[in-house]
Amino acid sequence: MKNDLDFCPEFKYQNIMTRITVAKGDGIGPEIMDATLQILNAAGAKLIIDEIAVGEQVYLSGNSSGIAPESWETIRRNKVFLKAPITTPQGGGYKSLNVTTRKALGLFANVRPCASLHPYVHTKHPQMDVVIIRENEEDLYAGIEHQQTDEVVQCLKLISRPGSEKIIRYAFEYARQYGRKKVSCFTKDNIMKQTDGLFHAVFDEVAKEYPDIENEHWIIDIGAAKLADTPENFDVIVLPNLYGDVLSDVAAQITGSVGLAGSANIGEECAMFEAIHGSAPRRAGQNLANPSGLLQGAIQMLNHIGQSEVAERVHNAWLKTIEDGIHTYDIYKEGVSVEKVGTREFAEAIIARLGASPSKLSPVTYKEAKAIEIKPYKRAPRQEKKLVGVDLFVHWDGTDPELLAQELKNIEFGQIKLSMITNRGVKVWPEGFKETFCTDHWRCRFKAPENGTMDAENIVALLSNALTQNIEVIKTENLYYFNGRQGFSLGQGQ
Amino acid sequence: MKNDLDFCPEFKYQNIMTRITVAKGDGIGPEIMDATLQILNAAGAKLIIDEIAVGEQVYLSGNSSGIAPESWETIRRNKVFLKAPITTPQGGGYKSLNVTTRKALGLFANVRPCASLHPYVHTKHPQMDVVIIRENEEDLYAGIEHQQTDEVVQCLKLISRPGSEKIIRYAFEYARQYGRKKVSCFTKDNIMKQTDGLFHAVFDEVAKEYPDIENEHWIIDIGAAKLADTPENFDVIVLPNLYGDVLSDVAAQITGSVGLAGSANIGEECAMFEAIHGSAPRRAGQNLANPSGLLQGAIQMLNHIGQSEVAERVHNAWLKTIEDGIHTYDIYKEGVSVEKVGTREFAEAIIARLGASPSKLSPVTYKEAKAIEIKPYKRAPRQEKKLVGVDLFVHWDGTDPELLAQELKNIEFGQIKLSMITNRGVKVWPEGFKETFCTDHWRCRFKAPENGTMDAENIVALLSNALTQNIEVIKTENLYYFNGRQGFSLGQGQ
Repeated sequence: MKNDLDFCPEFKYQNIMTRITVAKGDGIGPEIMDATLQILNAAGAKLIIDEIAVGEQVYLSGNSSGIAPESWETIRRNKVFLKAPITTPQGGGYKSLNVTTRKALGLFANVRPCASLHPYVHTKHPQMDVVIIRENEEDLYAGIEHQQTDEVVQCLKLISRPGSEKIIRYAFEYARQYGRKKVSCFTKDNIMKQTDGLFHAVFDEVAKEYPDIENEHWIIDIGAAKLADTPENFDVIVLPNLYGDVLSDVAAQITGSVGLAGSANIGEECAMFEAIHGSAPRRAGQNLANPSGLLQGAIQMLNHIGQSEVAERVHNAWLKTIEDGIHTYDIYKEGVSVEKVGTREFAEAIIARLGASPSKLSPVTYKEAKAIEIKPYKRAPRQEKKLVGVDLFVHWDGTDPELLAQELKNIEFGQIKLSMITNRGVKVWPEGFKETFCTDHWRCRFKAPENGTMDAENIVALLSNALTQNIEVIKTENLYYFNGRQGFSLGQGQ
Repeated sequence: MKNDLDFCPEFKYQNIMTRITVAKGDGIGPEIMDATLQILNAAGAKLIIDEIAVGEQVYLSGNSSGIAPESWETIRRNKVFLKAPITTPQGGGYKSLNVTTRKALGLFANVRPCASLHPYVHTKHPQMDVVIIRENEEDLYAGIEHQQTDEVVQCLKLISRPGSEKIIRYAFEYARQYGRKKVSCFTKDNIMKQTDGLFHAVFDEVAKEYPDIENEHWIIDIGAAKLADTPENFDVIVLPNLYGDVLSDVAAQITGSVGLAGSANIGEECAMFEAIHGSAPRRAGQNLANPSGLLQGAIQMLNHIGQSEVAERVHNAWLKTIEDGIHTYDIYKEGVSVEKVGTREFAEAIIARLGASPSKLSPVTYKEAKAIEIKPYKRAPRQEKKLVGVDLFVHWDGTDPELLAQELKNIEFGQIKLSMITNRGVKVWPEGFKETFCTDHWRCRFKAPENGTMDAENIVALLSNALTQNIEVIKTENLYYFNGRQGFSLGQGQ
């Protein structure tokens, strides 16, 4: 097989070519990347390729991120990155290259199309054709964790307005560009009224700008249940990071073809495209692996760089190949498949079908797809912020909240009074229930009088008083009103 | 129909009876509760019933919790509560009675059996028989939320050692009592190494005490995907609160019979049993509703109070009724069902089959089931705690982290130095990437020198310095080592 990296000599087409970064990765990575590039080349993709090394060898050579600094520079310069799966070595200290890339390059949108290939690939959901658009940067995945007491550890869930606006806008723009009819949003805002409430509120705001696209909101538990049971009722789904992580895997899995799915990670400047599966080292080097997942990533990439005609040709030839029963081992099934082929032969079968369209599966059309541009986020003027109290979190080994309250009353001063103690969110003082189980982690709310305010100085004074009283404050959270709206939740049972 | 509440005159059997609290709730609640109690009575359940009022009328009469204080006392005294669905009125200020009950009474375990009734109820998963055991008190559902800046809101995810131990131990005890073979645990501890890491670590610890029960751990995304696709591979699944909420609904839905499922909420002292569906006001008063969900809850209750022989008789008669095609409107299907019946007739059909067992569906056996007792949590001796730094969270409108770092350097003192700034978890100083999108919410880490410690006084001093420099600190998180183990995560990219 010829070296695919030579297929587009730079000097020849520079003016109409797109320069991309390619990493062949580990395990089956090199084989599926070669197959993918061979198909793109044959289909007339106009690409100049800079290859970089990432993955196992780079990790083991002492680079804990799995990528050399100069390779980072290549990715940042070219802005488009097609990446094969990599192997992260066993043992501590190695950082996930995917997480680092997504976060450092601001790849805020993860886009994962999940479509059934019934009856060629077995699924319980033959009509499924869903695109999951997952917020990729914030939520619990900000990775901010603190052990606070012997018994309690904490992770911060952060939801931001710009983060929510960007991903939701992206979802609606995606729906419009790809002729999708509906965008569904899933949150748990009946419980998390502020964080998920913000995501939902922004969804409702942004949806108004897209009257041509249907929109709906589901509580995540019911939404997830409906998606798992009747995915054919969904079209585009936009989700905060954690829900999106779980449901994009559910959606891919129930198509029956998780090994055939690709994904895009899109930022304002850069973008990364990949297969969703791993590097499968045990299958490596045997001409066995199915290159479809990476090819699906590459099709998203072609649309992203405006080569949608090539994307369409490749996608339809791939569908036709699947439909003709030319299958790699992973989807080969007696009675359904016609021929079991290797990685290279599968790629050749697709190339032989370039220009053809499937007749049983639905062909795709990518009319003038291009990189989706979203209105840049614009920071609003500062809101009027009023400090009305502070939650002091205390490490305390006792069991009777009344005793803790007595100790805390010693640090009150002026009009700043203890108003509530909760344990894991449940109010235990004043007037708790003896049945409430208490850990050693107590949230103690101090507040200015009704309609009053306090100063940041007061918090320093409270902490100072706590020190002299040997009260072990391990964290604080200020309580604010923003433009007159209360910015903190009440205790459960309050 | 006679008044079921009279069926067990108290004076007669007091010594062998269990006193329970019953609430008939709203909508279809009274009908399905009457049907359920009628079946329990006919089956020989030994119950004394105290009825209380909860729900819509109580809310509207001005009680924002939907329950009167004296009813609370009844629930707490009897300790066993069978509850029909209620309607929470529209509009703000009404608190979820379920959440209040669960949290105030310390009902830490939610137990939801999800079994298919193929071919009598349509499902894509005919072999499914899963029990979801969900932690019910902590995690993100502690409801501790704070808006922190104009752009960022936060919810705390709290995972505790006692909370994790109790639910995981419950799951293994449940598996043992009900003859289950395997307990699976799902977490996202590859990302949330401290919080989900604790849950997973406790799972591994507790699992060792149950060598007779198989155990396994899945990362939640893959686990959820497998559960949605091939639920027949799971048996008992134990999960933190949020994951459990989502996956218990997924599991119930894909059995095809979400309207037929019940659940138990178990605490160390009290327990509540219910249907998982709502009060369906539009179906109320028409003798239409299917009482199966509440009946399933009641069966769990009978086992809980040691009347397992009655539970078994009721459950098998119910299976036989389903199998005989005697179906209410919600599951009636031409060609499968034999007779469409109302709520009362369905109950009568079950009563007529008491003593019978299903022949096509698998009959249940509840040998000597009883309330599951778990070893009480024992607080360990205090760990050695070393304060090594503090994260100050700052509201700042700028965009260049370098400028913020300069301002923060002004508040350093002695050996306590600024070591890192992150935005939504990503390191932006020192040496960030320009592509990283920044909100107005900055986490600024101050640390003692390598291997050094700091005092709580130092934090007060830092905050005091911040005040004089007009740096707006909106929250703090102390950084500790516990018994020499680092109790906080690094920045992403650090």
